[in-house]
Amino acid sequence: MLRLYDSLPSGNAYKVRLLLSQLEIPFERVDVDVLAGAARRPEFLAVNPAGKVPALRLEDGSLLTESNAILWYLAHGTPLSPRSVRMQADVLRWMFFEQNALEPHLAMARYYLTLSGEPERHRDSALRHQKRAHEALRVLEQHLVTHRFMVAGAYTIADIALYAYTHVADEAGIGLNGYPAVQRWLDRVALEPQHVAIGELCGVTVRG
Amino acid sequence: MLRLYDSLPSGNAYKVRLLLSQLEIPFERVDVDVLAGAARRPEFLAVNPAGKVPALRLEDGSLLTESNAILWYLAHGTPLSPRSVRMQADVLRWMFFEQNALEPHLAMARYYLTLSGEPERHRDSALRHQKRAHEALRVLEQHLVTHRFMVAGAYTIADIALYAYTHVADEAGIGLNGYPAVQRWLDRVALEPQHVAIGELCGVTVRG
Repeated sequence: MLRLYDSLPSGNAYKVRLLLSQLEIPFERVDVDVLAGAARRPEFLAVNPAGKVPALRLEDGSLLTESNAILWYLAHGTPLSPRSVRMQADVLRWMFFEQNALEPHLAMARYYLTLSGEPERHRDSALRHQKRAHEALRVLEQHLVTHRFMVAGAYTIADIALYAYTHVADEAGIGLNGYPAVQRWLDRVALEPQHVAIGELCGVTVRG
Repeated sequence: MLRLYDSLPSGNAYKVRLLLSQLEIPFERVDVDVLAGAARRPEFLAVNPAGKVPALRLEDGSLLTESNAILWYLAHGTPLSPRSVRMQADVLRWMFFEQNALEPHLAMARYYLTLSGEPERHRDSALRHQKRAHEALRVLEQHLVTHRFMVAGAYTIADIALYAYTHVADEAGIGLNGYPAVQRWLDRVALEPQHVAIGELCGVTVRG
């Protein structure tokens, strides 16, 4: 069975839980208490030297890391990944955009303001990241004004990747009132079959 | 013919020039003077609303953006992209790592210290990014101690993606003396057939 090294607050880990749920793939989950520093301890670094969740132990025993690479692998050949190479490239385009322009800033601002427990201490850093997150949200808004989903008019792993941190933008101190197309898209994504919420446990929790 | 919206100093644009050269694919290049702000002017935003190079106009007239998505698309079905889905996932794993953990920090430190022309003004920001770049380089070093190339023992687009900014780490104020396996890998990458240097023009330069 697949084993997911997971953390409930992590948007990156949530992407994988959401996809596994929607593909109805059973999995074991090992909770890594990232906020308590467990991802940087030797026992987890032995699993993933990059010290990050999610990490997925595949059935052949090998480990796959990086949330969007995991999504791509699990969705390959399913309706959540387009068949055409050209469309797959567009899916990847948005997934790289997510990891480069959106996630670093939304995730850091969210960490500083909500997860760190010391929002005042990190206010300047949070502001810097919010500014960059707004740049990414403007690109997203511009695309979604004329598109129901990110690629090919259908729900794909590109939507899952971008949804993960965007739908908790309020926890990064970012309101989405200025992004009405993004808001409507978030609603559409949440209506997809087998959707699970970010804090919702799924899979079978085991010890590492 | 393919048309590449390009910029010689950009490591992300360099990835695409290098791959096009190694695949012997002819292309036109349109130079976008990113350092002079040309990527943020209306005429380029009409091409790519994200205001970034590289952007590739394909033969069907559609535009593909995000350097690593372009690499993936161009290399599909060639020896620079593995055939197996599992290996392709590992290629993507390292390409997402590059865009999330390495490029944002190496590229920004390089911009602040070398390209901005105002290194003193940006010293604090550069230091912050250097610290994070070192974290990524440690992950790279640990992998390359036991691997000749990033994935499957062979040169792939994962190597191209990671090479682009790593080989100019000195311009980001980062020496690679502490990363001997990375240095040996850089040498191996540069010895691949049809390698071109970052400042080396290739393709046919045209006006936009």
